[in-house]
Amino acid sequence: MTGQRGRRPGAPDTRGQILEAARESFAAKGFRSTTIRGVAADAGVDAALVHHYFGTKDDLFVASLEIPIDPRQALAAVFAAGLDDAGERLLATVLSVWDEPEGRRPLVALVRSSLGDPGSTLLQDGLVRVIFKALADHLPEGEGELRASLVATQMLGLILGRYVLGLEPLASLPRDEVVALVGPTLQRYLSGPVAQ
Amino acid sequence: MTGQRGRRPGAPDTRGQILEAARESFAAKGFRSTTIRGVAADAGVDAALVHHYFGTKDDLFVASLEIPIDPRQALAAVFAAGLDDAGERLLATVLSVWDEPEGRRPLVALVRSSLGDPGSTLLQDGLVRVIFKALADHLPEGEGELRASLVATQMLGLILGRYVLGLEPLASLPRDEVVALVGPTLQRYLSGPVAQ
Repeated sequence: MTGQRGRRPGAPDTRGQILEAARESFAAKGFRSTTIRGVAADAGVDAALVHHYFGTKDDLFVASLEIPIDPRQALAAVFAAGLDDAGERLLATVLSVWDEPEGRRPLVALVRSSLGDPGSTLLQDGLVRVIFKALADHLPEGEGELRASLVATQMLGLILGRYVLGLEPLASLPRDEVVALVGPTLQRYLSGPVAQ
Repeated sequence: MTGQRGRRPGAPDTRGQILEAARESFAAKGFRSTTIRGVAADAGVDAALVHHYFGTKDDLFVASLEIPIDPRQALAAVFAAGLDDAGERLLATVLSVWDEPEGRRPLVALVRSSLGDPGSTLLQDGLVRVIFKALADHLPEGEGELRASLVATQMLGLILGRYVLGLEPLASLPRDEVVALVGPTLQRYLSGPVAQ
């Protein structure tokens, strides 16, 4: 995210101003009440320019997180290699972001602020929904949402335990050991039986 | 918790006053900085009376949660029937508390307030530690903490997904289906391989 791409020569950092306005709006109003139009107004630009730089509201939200990867692209890469071992690949990808302090910082802040405020639905409407939807789209129809919600429980709890609460020995375990221990759980939720 | 047991005739609700002081102290100061002596002073009673009514600080903390079961006794009951199927029994026990609105309310408040405040360690020092320690004590020595931390990740995430974030279809699934889907994960963490 250099802010250079598509920037008009000599213009102020319009892209950065839009991002800043988006971040403030998502934090203050939540995901649902944030609109491209409102963010554009706050940044003093036309809504078309926000679409030009960022695409949809989901895209703008993902960009506002300042995480080093777009989780939807990362999911596509995980599932491009097939469903076998997707659990371990998915987990390794997620942990590679969270294991880096600069990847972890904005996410921990999002998790804390959203869970700490009963009125905030930023986590469920924003991050979880965007990832959840993208994940379900990679899974068999009719089962995608259930499988995705099961994956979400293990992923959320692992992130909380390892990064937010710092439960030992899990918090200090090398990444590949965590992948070996928890990967099979994700694999079972992705491709195992979900008899109902 | 009627506040009747051991109450001196004609005395005000001493037990209730101690509980109230304990709740305020845990919320304001966290788990570590709360002392039996401090709670006694806040309630205007002798520390010995706090011990008499509630036992240890862990006991006082569990009582202050106002949940319908003592999680340590519930764990003892789960493991008294052996390690086979303990995953499903453990999950069914936990869900039976959370599925009831009156059991869920204080726990959701605790989870939200603790996760929302980076300075609060009430969740990890209090609830998670008390349950975590009790759980590890039921597991083979040397592996107990790792297994307990893995169980904690799945349990925390399931609670967050089902009760706090309300992820569907998981949030509306009957309890026995959740037990069938997630129980095997807990069983694997309790008794499966944890090769390191």
